[in-house]
Amino acid sequence: MIDIDEWTITSAALKAQAATPNPRLKAVMDSLVRHLHDFAREVQLTEAEWSCGIDFLTQVGKITDDKRQEFILLSDVLGLSTLVTAQCNRRPTGCTEATVFGPFYVPDAPEYRNGDDISNGASGEPCFVSGTVRGIDGERIAHASMDVWQSDDEGWYDVQRPELDHAQGRGHLSSLEDGRYHFRSIVAVPYAIPHDGPVGRMLEKLGRHPWRPAHLHFMIKAPGYETLITHVFRSGGSYLGSDAVFGVRSSLIADWKRHDPGVAPDGTRMDVPFYTLDYDFVLNNAPKD
Amino acid sequence: MIDIDEWTITSAALKAQAATPNPRLKAVMDSLVRHLHDFAREVQLTEAEWSCGIDFLTQVGKITDDKRQEFILLSDVLGLSTLVTAQCNRRPTGCTEATVFGPFYVPDAPEYRNGDDISNGASGEPCFVSGTVRGIDGERIAHASMDVWQSDDEGWYDVQRPELDHAQGRGHLSSLEDGRYHFRSIVAVPYAIPHDGPVGRMLEKLGRHPWRPAHLHFMIKAPGYETLITHVFRSGGSYLGSDAVFGVRSSLIADWKRHDPGVAPDGTRMDVPFYTLDYDFVLNNAPKD
Repeated sequence: MIDIDEWTITSAALKAQAATPNPRLKAVMDSLVRHLHDFAREVQLTEAEWSCGIDFLTQVGKITDDKRQEFILLSDVLGLSTLVTAQCNRRPTGCTEATVFGPFYVPDAPEYRNGDDISNGASGEPCFVSGTVRGIDGERIAHASMDVWQSDDEGWYDVQRPELDHAQGRGHLSSLEDGRYHFRSIVAVPYAIPHDGPVGRMLEKLGRHPWRPAHLHFMIKAPGYETLITHVFRSGGSYLGSDAVFGVRSSLIADWKRHDPGVAPDGTRMDVPFYTLDYDFVLNNAPKD
Repeated sequence: MIDIDEWTITSAALKAQAATPNPRLKAVMDSLVRHLHDFAREVQLTEAEWSCGIDFLTQVGKITDDKRQEFILLSDVLGLSTLVTAQCNRRPTGCTEATVFGPFYVPDAPEYRNGDDISNGASGEPCFVSGTVRGIDGERIAHASMDVWQSDDEGWYDVQRPELDHAQGRGHLSSLEDGRYHFRSIVAVPYAIPHDGPVGRMLEKLGRHPWRPAHLHFMIKAPGYETLITHVFRSGGSYLGSDAVFGVRSSLIADWKRHDPGVAPDGTRMDVPFYTLDYDFVLNNAPKD
């Protein structure tokens, strides 16, 4: 442990953590140390670059708070979130695919009943969303817990608007006895991920744009089934082919249908054009214990 | 860029940053993305573990401020700092070796003259430090800029004591015309790196101790020479063989000599026992432009 150089440091660091009591933690940390060291040697990382990296992470830490999660954003734009989501959600054909969680989920969203307007005052064109939650064998799932969250038509989530003291475009509801769900909200639009912070500055230096295609977030849970965290993307929209966080799956792209003023699916008389989205979710069975 | 899985994500992420204008940044980020992804695939990182990692980095960010740098601490205990320091400071035989910078350097330390007491009230046994700053060809270097910093006898740096409103055990001085330097301070003792935060909790889970052997920090600059960032370690002390940040080099271990009460090297009459440390530094020539 004396006179360590850039080559012997790896075995020294592994030796230091050789007594890690938890074998899984040891395996993860051993691999992390090896790859971190290999990276630094491979690029011959300089002290100035190391210092730049420390500053960058410090800035990411500084901007992160209860409402902004820049570390998740960093993981998202580096493709790590998509990698982990993909390798942890290999599901049988027919199940709805999972995609990235993103940084804008908030626990304990307001409770809504089917038919309610979860936009709760957020600006945007009206959209009526409906569908069925089913299991892999086609069975309808009653009382599935559904979290929904989305941006407004300026591309902001409620948590990005400091002046707001209540949730908008965000809610929790449950599927009905027959597995159906329906709620009113607004049309999702493409938006730029938060890019006024260190991750945004990094994207700029990497010649990348910060845009995501229009989508609605869903997290669906039901006893006996695997939790599904996913988006539904709007077909025909911009950035489907260059999502800044690599989240698009073709099976998750759906039609938002435009309608002239008239009667909405829930019977509401609409004086303005409105949209409908019908999307069914298929949950995988939970693994047997 | 659609239907990306855990294998295709790497080429997708590399493609996204293919237009990075700065070629060095591109090389570094390409390698980082590849190693980060390889790590996550190799250990089959789960969503819960990913989430744990995000939480950990968030905590590291939260505790980091102007006076505490938990990201540097993390880099130090993972061996990354030592790796980068070693590969960036390959010097001709005869030059003083570099070691890790550590998280406790503070710019603009108080100015002292040779002979001054830089402990400035910090508790500890008196120690008179002296030596010569030379170049690789043996020439004495006048007016070399020397930053010195150290902990007190309880193992705390001044910046770790919130009640302190002035520097202690920290100062800046210049070598004399003949390259000599000398100052008074206190004896360095082993100390635990800050372990009341996320990095400390990580060390505990890895079965590691947080201790560092006793040392004095130096940063020495002179025109025409490479900047030297190093420590001088105290021979015979604890933890020389298990430094938590892998910083010990045998060439940097020196004798702190104990003396009975009497006359100190600078002529001060000491009523208590005191120590002397004599250590010469040899700077490498700066690279030619």
